[in-house]
Amino acid sequence: MGNMTIKDIAKKCGVGVSTVSRAMNNHPDINPETKEKILKTIAQSNYVPNNSARNLKRTDTKAIAVLVKGIGNTFFSDLVSGLERECQHMNYSCILQHVEEQEDELDIALHITKEKKLRGLVFLGGNFSHPKEKMEQLEVPYVLSTIRTSDMEDKKYAAVSVDDFKESYKMTEYLIHLGHKKIAILTAPKEDKSIGKLRLLGYQKALRDYGIPYSEKLVSYMDAEEDRYSFRSGYKLTRQLLMDTEFTALYATSDTMAIGACRALKEAGISVPGQCSVAGFDGMDTGEFYIPSITTIRQPVEQIAKATADLLFDMINGKEKPRQLIFEGELVERESTIPPADKEKQSSNGTMKREK
Amino acid sequence: MGNMTIKDIAKKCGVGVSTVSRAMNNHPDINPETKEKILKTIAQSNYVPNNSARNLKRTDTKAIAVLVKGIGNTFFSDLVSGLERECQHMNYSCILQHVEEQEDELDIALHITKEKKLRGLVFLGGNFSHPKEKMEQLEVPYVLSTIRTSDMEDKKYAAVSVDDFKESYKMTEYLIHLGHKKIAILTAPKEDKSIGKLRLLGYQKALRDYGIPYSEKLVSYMDAEEDRYSFRSGYKLTRQLLMDTEFTALYATSDTMAIGACRALKEAGISVPGQCSVAGFDGMDTGEFYIPSITTIRQPVEQIAKATADLLFDMINGKEKPRQLIFEGELVERESTIPPADKEKQSSNGTMKREK
Repeated sequence: MGNMTIKDIAKKCGVGVSTVSRAMNNHPDINPETKEKILKTIAQSNYVPNNSARNLKRTDTKAIAVLVKGIGNTFFSDLVSGLERECQHMNYSCILQHVEEQEDELDIALHITKEKKLRGLVFLGGNFSHPKEKMEQLEVPYVLSTIRTSDMEDKKYAAVSVDDFKESYKMTEYLIHLGHKKIAILTAPKEDKSIGKLRLLGYQKALRDYGIPYSEKLVSYMDAEEDRYSFRSGYKLTRQLLMDTEFTALYATSDTMAIGACRALKEAGISVPGQCSVAGFDGMDTGEFYIPSITTIRQPVEQIAKATADLLFDMINGKEKPRQLIFEGELVERESTIPPADKEKQSSNGTMKREK
Repeated sequence: MGNMTIKDIAKKCGVGVSTVSRAMNNHPDINPETKEKILKTIAQSNYVPNNSARNLKRTDTKAIAVLVKGIGNTFFSDLVSGLERECQHMNYSCILQHVEEQEDELDIALHITKEKKLRGLVFLGGNFSHPKEKMEQLEVPYVLSTIRTSDMEDKKYAAVSVDDFKESYKMTEYLIHLGHKKIAILTAPKEDKSIGKLRLLGYQKALRDYGIPYSEKLVSYMDAEEDRYSFRSGYKLTRQLLMDTEFTALYATSDTMAIGACRALKEAGISVPGQCSVAGFDGMDTGEFYIPSITTIRQPVEQIAKATADLLFDMINGKEKPRQLIFEGELVERESTIPPADKEKQSSNGTMKREK
């Protein structure tokens, strides 16, 4: 059974050589049953592709890396799955690399690009604010996925995301339309210049447009050192807020944080949405099955993953220059947000504090 | 600034060459600040390690792959993060590869091992029942992580997991001790021979030991074709159960499924834990922040990830033979489980059906 060629495999399966090649290269244009049959035949024959026919693409060195910052946010695992699937289709290896909050993703990118001979990179998450000169040291194409910075357009980065400013404005406006005026927000650390900053700016703009005074007391900033956008972070930030302020709605800038917030509110004896509405961001499954289900901005994760991969591979193959793609988010209204209860009633039952 | 050697970098940072090497190889034994300084210096100098001094380990081809089956279970993302971190320490690339439910992970493993010249593999999840002869075609070391099969000991696979049979027995026994006799279970497809089967066997054994009759009507099997251990699967299986049976406790064999179950119970007007206790398995953050928080078996994810990586790298380096490591799970009692309410009372308020 040893020393079979690709032609023998093709013959045995009753298909052409190109079909065998497609099966082996994980090409999308192949009938799944045929592919399975071919891969099984190859496995059973102990046929080693690397030693074989010329017409098989040599692909062993084609790899991209996905650098993920912020592992507390399970939103990224959906994106990583999507990216990895696209890599399979293109027959690229997808190397996963997490970046700690305090690490510099660009330093790591520069290092591993050389060391692992990467063809391209995807950056996911993080506070992306690096000097242009340093970015230019990256000699392979890269795409920022679900990352935006306020000065991105000048910098000509390739990027795929929603418009975080606009989507955040949309959510804040929705809460205002429900009748809320005291809307607390859980947001990124003060020094953030990325999506966290943009979401805060969207919130501020909506308040301004509707004549609602902005109060720093209603803003709870994440700790720069901790795992951001996590359940625990939402829980802690809400507990801090509850210590000296009152609000009828809380806008957490991720679904994970919104769930942590609901837990903190429950422990403080405040019912959601009866006494406080809670809104999230991202549109994850976990918010859909939560009780109450969480009102959110749904990011089109699959489309973002596919567009990120397509743009990156087109850049790698010289077919495309860096450009910025914006997807539309969708406001999904669920159980966690309702109009505010009568204010006097809230104060009198003692569970919400009066404003000082 | 071009053509710097590793010695120049060392000199510039005021450290030895071996320290620079450690920084570049992501070795754990280095002061983080020193490492950062070195990597920054390297980045700024545009020094390319691959072209340089001999005393730097050449590492570009060292990669392992992690094959993940069952992406609906966010439990795996914690494990993947842990594995990836260990790979960084060892300076291996961690290639992520998802496997669809209907795909054969071993065929994919055989294929990518050759194609990507992998040094080792980790299998995560899935119904791992392959003929021994076919497993032997895998010519690199591999570890099954959080996978167990009933005939594993004979097969001499390297494996790291909890004892799913024992842990599942523990949870069922806990529910019995609370006073529950009608305990429904959400479990893997009937044909499963892996952890799903073991957890079902543990449940059955506990019932038998406590003289509680086993009823197939209380067992809800996942659909083989669908995303297993997901929120949605827990939701669907519980809805099916509610159609023609009654129970005072529901044991979902993952936390994600337990959360889906709570949602289905709520929609059916059944309160958790007042009218029905719900237990999960895995010990994920999402269950801790859920309302009610979910009683579960906590798997020591970080230890499992580290032990999996250590065993794999030891096997790759010829220091260790395949062996099986079992970690202890921890029963975490939370809000979702209480003793059953009086049975007559339950029936009379109309939300639970009488047994036929």
